[in-house]
Amino acid sequence: MTTATTAASPVDAGRIDAHLAAFAALTEPGGPGCTRLAYSPLERDAHAVFAAHMAGLGLTVSTDHAGNTVAELPPDQAASGPGGLPAVGTGSHLDTVPQGGGFDGIVGVVAAMEVAEIMVRQAVPHRRPWRFVAFAAEEGARFGQACNGSRMAAGLTRAADLAGLTDRDGVTMAAAMAAVGLRPDLVDGSRWRPDDWFAFVELHIEQGEVLRSQGLPLGVVDVISGSTRLRVRVEGRATHSGGTPMHLRRDALVTASECVLLGDRLARDPAHRGVRVTVGRLGVEPGSITTVPGAVEFTVDVRDVDSVRQRDTARALARDFESLARARGVELVTEVMADTSPVILPGWVAAESRAACTELGLPYRVLPSGASHDVQQIGHVIAAGLLFVPSRDGLSHVPDEFTPTDQITPGVHALLETLRRLDGTTR
Amino acid sequence: MTTATTAASPVDAGRIDAHLAAFAALTEPGGPGCTRLAYSPLERDAHAVFAAHMAGLGLTVSTDHAGNTVAELPPDQAASGPGGLPAVGTGSHLDTVPQGGGFDGIVGVVAAMEVAEIMVRQAVPHRRPWRFVAFAAEEGARFGQACNGSRMAAGLTRAADLAGLTDRDGVTMAAAMAAVGLRPDLVDGSRWRPDDWFAFVELHIEQGEVLRSQGLPLGVVDVISGSTRLRVRVEGRATHSGGTPMHLRRDALVTASECVLLGDRLARDPAHRGVRVTVGRLGVEPGSITTVPGAVEFTVDVRDVDSVRQRDTARALARDFESLARARGVELVTEVMADTSPVILPGWVAAESRAACTELGLPYRVLPSGASHDVQQIGHVIAAGLLFVPSRDGLSHVPDEFTPTDQITPGVHALLETLRRLDGTTR
Repeated sequence: MTTATTAASPVDAGRIDAHLAAFAALTEPGGPGCTRLAYSPLERDAHAVFAAHMAGLGLTVSTDHAGNTVAELPPDQAASGPGGLPAVGTGSHLDTVPQGGGFDGIVGVVAAMEVAEIMVRQAVPHRRPWRFVAFAAEEGARFGQACNGSRMAAGLTRAADLAGLTDRDGVTMAAAMAAVGLRPDLVDGSRWRPDDWFAFVELHIEQGEVLRSQGLPLGVVDVISGSTRLRVRVEGRATHSGGTPMHLRRDALVTASECVLLGDRLARDPAHRGVRVTVGRLGVEPGSITTVPGAVEFTVDVRDVDSVRQRDTARALARDFESLARARGVELVTEVMADTSPVILPGWVAAESRAACTELGLPYRVLPSGASHDVQQIGHVIAAGLLFVPSRDGLSHVPDEFTPTDQITPGVHALLETLRRLDGTTR
Repeated sequence: MTTATTAASPVDAGRIDAHLAAFAALTEPGGPGCTRLAYSPLERDAHAVFAAHMAGLGLTVSTDHAGNTVAELPPDQAASGPGGLPAVGTGSHLDTVPQGGGFDGIVGVVAAMEVAEIMVRQAVPHRRPWRFVAFAAEEGARFGQACNGSRMAAGLTRAADLAGLTDRDGVTMAAAMAAVGLRPDLVDGSRWRPDDWFAFVELHIEQGEVLRSQGLPLGVVDVISGSTRLRVRVEGRATHSGGTPMHLRRDALVTASECVLLGDRLARDPAHRGVRVTVGRLGVEPGSITTVPGAVEFTVDVRDVDSVRQRDTARALARDFESLARARGVELVTEVMADTSPVILPGWVAAESRAACTELGLPYRVLPSGASHDVQQIGHVIAAGLLFVPSRDGLSHVPDEFTPTDQITPGVHALLETLRRLDGTTR
């Protein structure tokens, strides 16, 4: 033995690798990276892999109308009846952004699969039901709004909202859900009952560089950023690039470029420290080398852990975009695609994770999450916690997204111990 | 009779409308506007319509290996033999940009069809061969390089170059030509022989607002702008929009936006008066709302009637783009896609057009052309002239491109008279 004080781990690296490989294979052909979009047949295939694993362990598996797949391990005192204890749970999501990676979300689902396998194989004593969840449609890349499955579980997105969310091809979320066999009209019946749950803890890759730069295996999240998403359309006039003198142009891309730079400048201003502004999608019409751009549409993602600064920044951008457009003689319309508040996670759930890390000899730090997560949504109705393992170079939402298995296993171990501690706690 | 001094015209507005309508129908479905791309089956269909009309008039029609369709009306002294006079000619192109209009190029081909019909029906005396040409693949929107058919006729683009020109799908010009039944390997055999030609005059819509704003029916062009086209690729790092703090970003779109604004600013600077800089196409990768752009590719079109200012501007842009990229820590590569010099058209051809306008009582002005034209290419090997009719609101390369028929007919009349004068001239 070395001098390591880390506790012996029941977590099996080989099983984790096998699960990651199985999910990575479920991708649109062509690459690069992994493309398994929200409410696509490939996402449902991934849920079926999760469900089959859980059913194989003897758990009861169900899929709700939002497409969330839930596997339940009953408590040891199965006959606890109506007076039974509320559940603990864990899980994450299986969809990806276009040309994303194989770890964002998937690590948390694989962790749930491994925790369930350890619980069953080792017959770990437990007094609460344990639920393992694969949430549907977490990524906002397709429909603009993130965390759709968990939002429906939390009642934050309702059946009536689903016709108003569309992808870039104009497909509504309701239509996409129906196309993969779900029942968008019935999702309001899939809301989680708060008194049915004790706590839920998600394991996720950090998607940033804090843990890696500090050489720490684990992060315990205290607060999750909110996100306001804008869709901006600039309308100028498409004219011939040779025949139109500069002073007669109404070039939509010139104004859009000013908007991109304004967002970057505003987010880097010390007065807005902490806010992040991203223009991630931008399309030019007609997109011909020899035509002055007539229209440009782009998205803006505004994130902050401070809800006031988040909304103030989004409002300031919309107002300043308007001024830029007016000065250039082009039309500009800004609409809010989605708006999610930051969430402060309850300290008593995080305390159990910190205690679990300490007990296992795993160094950790408390840190905020820049990205949105499913626990942010269900945190509105039940007690939720979030654990991070490192991301190589902080990369995420790209093919190079990567966390080596020996950096995942400590996270799974800490997750298992957190859930065991929560199983034994009463509040 | 009114007090109008305009000569009675043999030009038939009804025939012109019918030709324009026939070409407008040959478009990719869906719209808006007209999409009939260079070296597409639809472009070849349009050439077939032109060829059928000319054959119907009894002219000899041939298509060269570059796809240019040429119809010849022999001189009255058909047996002029080897000592025959060199030809006069007219024509333009039938392809369009994506979502373009039904007038750019097409008006010049329709004018050629009408001039040929008048010559045949009225048995107008002439001593030279008259050639009517539909050039292939004039628009640079697909392959980056404009005026492809006329460049091959002038020997400016060679068979060996055709594998190096690609569209956005990676299809080479050689492959596109072969796919529509042309022989890209043989185009060097399709070069026009200078001693075979006396002069060539093209009629085109202005694609600008000079004629319209001055209420003039005709423009006689003295000089055609050159165009240098750049393809610029910016490589940053695609990272998560929530997880990546502003100071750790390498956002390719932020740098590309600075480049767009630099080009606009530089072209509006009094020191560069006359140059026009356009970023018409710009694509963002991966193009997800929640990913910092990892790469951006865009085009720059630099136009000027002054070849030194044109090239200096393109060089200055490439150099300053590089500085912007270095300051932001991203990679940037600029390559020249195409480079065409401005052309000063010979004064003696323009003089015949001016005399024709005066004779017909059609007010005109001498003006430069901002757009490229086929005559700019063949002007390198034979004497060439260019006539403009107005464009409504100066719009071109867009669905709203429009010139009413009563503004086309005076142009066709002036073209006919120019060619008749050239037919009678000897130098």
